[in-house]
Amino acid sequence: MRFFSDNAAAVCPEAMAALGQANRLDTAYDGDAWSARLDDAFSDLFERRIRALWVATGTAANSLALAALCPAHGSIVCHRDAHIQNDECGAPEFYTHGAKLLLGEGEGAKLTPETVEAVLATVRNDVHQVQPHALSITNATEYGLVYTPEEVAALGRLCKARGLGFHMDGARFANAVARLGCAPADLTWRAGIDALSFGFVKNGGMSAEALIFFDPDLAAATLYRRKRAGHLLSKGRYLAAQILAMLEDGVWMKNARAANDAAARLAAAAGGRLVLPVEANEVFLKASPPEAAALRAKGFDFYDWGPGEARLVTSWNSEPAHVEALAEAIRSL
Amino acid sequence: MRFFSDNAAAVCPEAMAALGQANRLDTAYDGDAWSARLDDAFSDLFERRIRALWVATGTAANSLALAALCPAHGSIVCHRDAHIQNDECGAPEFYTHGAKLLLGEGEGAKLTPETVEAVLATVRNDVHQVQPHALSITNATEYGLVYTPEEVAALGRLCKARGLGFHMDGARFANAVARLGCAPADLTWRAGIDALSFGFVKNGGMSAEALIFFDPDLAAATLYRRKRAGHLLSKGRYLAAQILAMLEDGVWMKNARAANDAAARLAAAAGGRLVLPVEANEVFLKASPPEAAALRAKGFDFYDWGPGEARLVTSWNSEPAHVEALAEAIRSL
Amino acid sequence: MRFFSDNAAAVCPEAMAALGQANRLDTAYDGDAWSARLDDAFSDLFERRIRALWVATGTAANSLALAALCPAHGSIVCHRDAHIQNDECGAPEFYTHGAKLLLGEGEGAKLTPETVEAVLATVRNDVHQVQPHALSITNATEYGLVYTPEEVAALGRLCKARGLGFHMDGARFANAVARLGCAPADLTWRAGIDALSFGFVKNGGMSAEALIFFDPDLAAATLYRRKRAGHLLSKGRYLAAQILAMLEDGVWMKNARAANDAAARLAAAAGGRLVLPVEANEVFLKASPPEAAALRAKGFDFYDWGPGEARLVTSWNSEPAHVEALAEAIRSL
Amino acid sequence: MRFFSDNAAAVCPEAMAALGQANRLDTAYDGDAWSARLDDAFSDLFERRIRALWVATGTAANSLALAALCPAHGSIVCHRDAHIQNDECGAPEFYTHGAKLLLGEGEGAKLTPETVEAVLATVRNDVHQVQPHALSITNATEYGLVYTPEEVAALGRLCKARGLGFHMDGARFANAVARLGCAPADLTWRAGIDALSFGFVKNGGMSAEALIFFDPDLAAATLYRRKRAGHLLSKGRYLAAQILAMLEDGVWMKNARAANDAAARLAAAAGGRLVLPVEANEVFLKASPPEAAALRAKGFDFYDWGPGEARLVTSWNSEPAHVEALAEAIRSL
Repeated sequence: MRFFSDNAAAVCPEAMAALGQANRLDTAYDGDAWSARLDDAFSDLFERRIRALWVATGTAANSLALAALCPAHGSIVCHRDAHIQNDECGAPEFYTHGAKLLLGEGEGAKLTPETVEAVLATVRNDVHQVQPHALSITNATEYGLVYTPEEVAALGRLCKARGLGFHMDGARFANAVARLGCAPADLTWRAGIDALSFGFVKNGGMSAEALIFFDPDLAAATLYRRKRAGHLLSKGRYLAAQILAMLEDGVWMKNARAANDAAARLAAAAGGRLVLPVEANEVFLKASPPEAAALRAKGFDFYDWGPGEARLVTSWNSEPAHVEALAEAIRSL
Repeated sequence: MRFFSDNAAAVCPEAMAALGQANRLDTAYDGDAWSARLDDAFSDLFERRIRALWVATGTAANSLALAALCPAHGSIVCHRDAHIQNDECGAPEFYTHGAKLLLGEGEGAKLTPETVEAVLATVRNDVHQVQPHALSITNATEYGLVYTPEEVAALGRLCKARGLGFHMDGARFANAVARLGCAPADLTWRAGIDALSFGFVKNGGMSAEALIFFDPDLAAATLYRRKRAGHLLSKGRYLAAQILAMLEDGVWMKNARAANDAAARLAAAAGGRLVLPVEANEVFLKASPPEAAALRAKGFDFYDWGPGEARLVTSWNSEPAHVEALAEAIRSL
Repeated sequence: MRFFSDNAAAVCPEAMAALGQANRLDTAYDGDAWSARLDDAFSDLFERRIRALWVATGTAANSLALAALCPAHGSIVCHRDAHIQNDECGAPEFYTHGAKLLLGEGEGAKLTPETVEAVLATVRNDVHQVQPHALSITNATEYGLVYTPEEVAALGRLCKARGLGFHMDGARFANAVARLGCAPADLTWRAGIDALSFGFVKNGGMSAEALIFFDPDLAAATLYRRKRAGHLLSKGRYLAAQILAMLEDGVWMKNARAANDAAARLAAAAGGRLVLPVEANEVFLKASPPEAAALRAKGFDFYDWGPGEARLVTSWNSEPAHVEALAEAIRSL
Repeated sequence: MRFFSDNAAAVCPEAMAALGQANRLDTAYDGDAWSARLDDAFSDLFERRIRALWVATGTAANSLALAALCPAHGSIVCHRDAHIQNDECGAPEFYTHGAKLLLGEGEGAKLTPETVEAVLATVRNDVHQVQPHALSITNATEYGLVYTPEEVAALGRLCKARGLGFHMDGARFANAVARLGCAPADLTWRAGIDALSFGFVKNGGMSAEALIFFDPDLAAATLYRRKRAGHLLSKGRYLAAQILAMLEDGVWMKNARAANDAAARLAAAAGGRLVLPVEANEVFLKASPPEAAALRAKGFDFYDWGPGEARLVTSWNSEPAHVEALAEAIRSL
């Protein structure tokens, strides 16, 4: 019973079926019928004209977005615990040709205008220091917290005032939207977001993420950067088809709700053991080494996360019986 | 009836089935059971211990290989018509951080020791010029010709003598092996190849290529570069499963033979119209604009290739009736 | 008696004197009184507002100019024999983060609209190929030929029509102006040049070149790139002072004329032995190995340049007696 | 009376004289007689065979050193207040092609084995994180403290144990040696240093720093990187001559002692106002805004450094009368 990560889960049936339907000759790269429908599908979802590009990984989506927003001699503000800082082996530096990440503080990997301003205040405005060009936040965060539309908008105003591009790493964007029940537009461009990495892989896709540019002009150079990075797959239709299938009939929301609900059940069982509120599909639990061992002895797998803490991640297809068993095990610690 | 390219074809049933079989929770990235089997599978095929990494595109495979063989301040010799020079939007320059490609001559995109030496002779051995660190050839070439083991070995000896790493872009490696009937080892490491981009996508795969390092030590830094480039997919098992399925029972050879045979049928029909011998699955045909139009009027799609020439590419699943019809149409020009 | 290169010559007395005058405490980097005068001095010379940045080498000037005009995913058209292609160890690729140089043809390292168009015609307008963003020419060329204002303007019109930035490597700009007797403005921005590497080192300076942006906006990011490349010297006043001293009283023209005149004397002696017309301070001479040996036996040092050719370069301070002796020696071959 | 920085001071007479002596034709780049003597001169000083390369700036020296010690996919540990982190506009990231700086703590910009280990402990050993390849310290530090040979050696042992290259930014190396009275070898290679940026500009030079590789093999690729960065000056003899002149007769030590002594006089005057001990040529003084204003009203210029602090920097040629006047003014605050 594995609660390691949502990015290792099986692929949802709708996405699998889409692969079969796309399994016929069509134009290569992104010249096919499925890829051609992406802009419209996401424009409908976001209630404005956008440009959507498929890529195979969230790391590629994030890095391409940052390369569109920040020159090599600039810097990007993000949280100290951001995925782009800690888990992408320097991909943002690779794609931006060496831009610097400036690290902000905040519980649960959430930034606020105050913590961002604190970072900006460390930068002198002269040529001896890389100047900030972008802000990147993760929603839901790496610690399973959610930025509300208002919180994003407050950061968006700061970005506008300071001339910063604004990127959202939405590897778990679906979980955030499912939690908030808001319009995707409210959580993104209406709040000032310029580019969104819209994740599907952690939410039941196989190998497709969508990189959304709310300013279509930002996408132009990215088409070249995607190819140049080896991310223009020959048979892109299989990526586009996955995404389209998950957008249709709200599959992406259904999957995210299922994962969130499973996490909520664990959270309810955890009670005072919670390190942080559970707002998406991640549960951070205080558990001493013997307690963690006790859970593992019952067949539950998960990551330790700092001393005396465990991270439990639920998925679109977390087995209800497994979740219930884990909840019970937590209660009985 | 499309003869545009093999990289747009449908996915072969064995690869599709493998996706289904891999569709269950396993460890993320390349920690899964399928990925774990790649080294052994390719070591068997190549008759020595190798390291194999999956990536999603040939561009990524080629660029990672070149980054392993050439520093940023070096240069790579390749043919003027090489895919790495003309069709990857500068990916080799991106991954190597700016190494230079030095361009050699030769009919049908084939290099020889003489044409490589001619390139090397243009480089002064001083710090004002980027010094050559690698040679890259494509087999089968971009023009459908095949390097024999002896031809590769001659280049391999030159590489050894000049201290060059040796890379083979094998986007159509299967077609070359199918043509030659040789051991994969003879065409690669026994002939001096250090790194091979072993293509599966053009041969019936969906989204998986194998990057093979014959010197396992060369692979170490590549693991980081792959991640850093956003090419370490979360659910790598689907890539590994495709590759394993196509290695099993010789599917990769069966597919390549089918494509080669279809091309041979077209070649036989073309006779004196051939621009180059047909040794793999590409046919370059002399066809005046009216002749090309006549073929298109009969329902055949293909690329023009230079003035008065057409490129016809066959696939693992080229419909025999379509091939026969095209052969007939060519004969009747 | 050395005729190897102008970039090894001694420093002219005006530049040396300027170092002494600048030898007192002032603000570091480019905050000093001398650096502050550069924009005005060059704006006067070029008859419009420009931005001028000192750097220590022509390679840095060229590369910073190209980085301002071409993104990493773009390409730069230049002559096959251009210094940026052959003699800077990939510096343009380093500063642009991997842009590609596309090589054009033409005798004496001169490009024409036709030869540039021929290069552009090889590029498909799709994401698989790096798209041209800039043209770079060298004036005087690496073979001592000079582009006239009309010739530059013809290329400038092409650049405008094709959306290309236009850079002039003016390592020997002074020699070109001295030859042509034209206004510096006519040879540059009036002919469409966006950025000029204005050389002083080969013309009697010690360690200062001026990078001129005719569109001041282009300079903004370059200030960061210069620092980032380690080219913002702490005591920049010594560089600015050299340049100012050479601009004053036409020292730069006096020096260039002296070098050109010396070359002209050699050219007159060479007669039919000239490989190319002598328009600046370089003489390319047909000389068989025994003939070259004969010259060397008389104490003249120079580079062989291709089989049966010798390159003789004169300087601002070529000793008249040495020049006369060499002319005599050439005549007596 | 300026106490802003030592990098704006005038050039010492020995270095100026050397420029005049070098002012004759010699081979270009580093092929001249002065450059040829550098290896020997520094090998004598350091009591072992080393390789020494001149460059024009400390930023270039530091970045080239780091590029020799750390690949693009690696990281470099340094202090949070290090010059390479805060004052080089991302030059280390540019030269390493995007390596990450990992920031350690410690008063006065000094690292210890404990604070370095604390940084290393944050890095998981997997491909998702850039792995540490090098440690860089500054001696004397950005806050005017000095690492003793024992302190360096303790860090050197850690580097050896952890497989890290070890770089010393010695922009004020002379001040450190003058303070410690130790052999340069004891402070560098005997303590595990692999590469040293040996500063001359802050110590009375005009435009020359020496990059020292204690393992000569490390220098090989750097020769290409220096050229590629535009840092191989045409007339390198003027840089080499400065350095040689300052090495001769202990000019570098004499200059550094003068600067240290001036700072010591200020320190003695400051007494309890010192923020940190004064061990080199920088004085950090507690001074309220009115106090700072009072000093400025008496004609002293300096930088504010954090709230309520002033930074006073002395130079090789700080006027004794100015120093005395400032000491007096501090006493009378």
